Amino acid sequence: MNAMSEHPRKIRELIRRGELTRPTCGLVPGYTQANVVILPEELAFDFFLFCQRNPKPCPVLEVLEPGNCEPVLTAPGADIRVDVPRYRIYQNGKLTSEEREITKYWRRDLVTFLLGCSFTFEGALIRAGISLRHIEQGKNVAMYVTNLETVPARVFSGPLVVSMRPILRTKVVRAVQITSRFPMVHGAPVHIGDPERIGITDLSRPDYGDPVEIKKDEVPVFWACGVTPQAVALKSKPSLMITHSPGYMFLTDLLDEELSVL
Amino acid sequence: MNAMSEHPRKIRELIRRGELTRPTCGLVPGYTQANVVILPEELAFDFFLFCQRNPKPCPVLEVLEPGNCEPVLTAPGADIRVDVPRYRIYQNGKLTSEEREITKYWRRDLVTFLLGCSFTFEGALIRAGISLRHIEQGKNVAMYVTNLETVPARVFSGPLVVSMRPILRTKVVRAVQITSRFPMVHGAPVHIGDPERIGITDLSRPDYGDPVEIKKDEVPVFWACGVTPQAVALKSKPSLMITHSPGYMFLTDLLDEELSVL
Repeated sequence: MNAMSEHPRKIRELIRRGELTRPTCGLVPGYTQANVVILPEELAFDFFLFCQRNPKPCPVLEVLEPGNCEPVLTAPGADIRVDVPRYRIYQNGKLTSEEREITKYWRRDLVTFLLGCSFTFEGALIRAGISLRHIEQGKNVAMYVTNLETVPARVFSGPLVVSMRPILRTKVVRAVQITSRFPMVHGAPVHIGDPERIGITDLSRPDYGDPVEIKKDEVPVFWACGVTPQAVALKSKPSLMITHSPGYMFLTDLLDEELSVL
Repeated sequence: MNAMSEHPRKIRELIRRGELTRPTCGLVPGYTQANVVILPEELAFDFFLFCQRNPKPCPVLEVLEPGNCEPVLTAPGADIRVDVPRYRIYQNGKLTSEEREITKYWRRDLVTFLLGCSFTFEGALIRAGISLRHIEQGKNVAMYVTNLETVPARVFSGPLVVSMRPILRTKVVRAVQITSRFPMVHGAPVHIGDPERIGITDLSRPDYGDPVEIKKDEVPVFWACGVTPQAVALKSKPSLMITHSPGYMFLTDLLDEELSVL
């Protein structure tokens, strides 16, 4: 099967049947992949507030009504309980299992948030001739907890998590311009250069993902990261929270270019 | 007093003391003014969903926690119960009074939404040499109910309301570019040209505001309008809804240019 030439709907069908269980990186390029956060209704308004106040780490693509499983706006026909290749179940703030599907956990009070993912702007950077080392080397992007605080919303608060990509010094301005066009998927960088300014003491030891080399003619550039909302939500120890497993994203029918503002 | 040279905080103090009771158009240019919609908590999540699904007519600048009166992010120190020059009170979907302040209506379950306003992008158009007839003539902008449906969210649904500005044919592309930079304040137009295509049969009879002449070398250009969320919220007949009176906006401390994405 050549996944590159398919519509996301076809890939979701394979996922639903358990025939595609790998990370979704590189699948159906040009289509938007999403982070998934599922929470009980009692926390949903406050989490929605948190996302509105922190649009860079938490860009909301779609919110489903309580109990609703079909993302009618971004992936009509899909079922959020079975169409993600791998899920994580958190109970009272602890990871309790990883699952292929979450039908048995489903409740009528669960609210699903689909949040933008950096795969979208990475595609735009690559198309503009800006190479990304972690992709070339088949690694996960390097992510760091910073000393920058998010804007709290009742029970939700915590530090901003960022992803870092080494960018050629001569391409930094272009990288800012390109990612600025995509505010729905983390948008422009939050910091350029000296990692210590945002509380990162050792780039070789990321808090999540894999370290990558930074060459002499490169600058570390930092973008707000979709790990932030998960980390913040977990801190509030919800009785139940379900997310995608890192790298195993939900495939929407949105085209990346539909998300650009200009 | 020369309001143009003041900080919005100073103007809000005058408003609070009842010393400034006129429409806010033209006050403290460069600072962002906001539409105000206040609803009971039981409707707040669904209205928030409606806004997220319809970002062009309903660009959310800030949402206050239930019972909270201070927009800490966009106007710290302000009190949303007294700092708007004129309010409208709607009960069960009917306008029941206009008020100078709403202290006596306040309840601990009221949720305030501040939504972007077209004053922001109008300033950007004027700075770019694109003249706006309704401003030159001291009129209210012409607004029309269209046959374009918004994306519903449970009890909230209804047609998109648009504002229309005649734009010189040679400036239409530039007007699209400029307003695209401001997705938080209605953003790019939703339609250019032939009004019948979006269900408007007679431009000389707007549903809200004042008609303006369209000259031979001009094209009518239509933007999503902040009247939409009020019209949609009213349709659901909430027991209580409080808004600003048209033209009497809430002055935030945000700079218009802080809202631009590029």
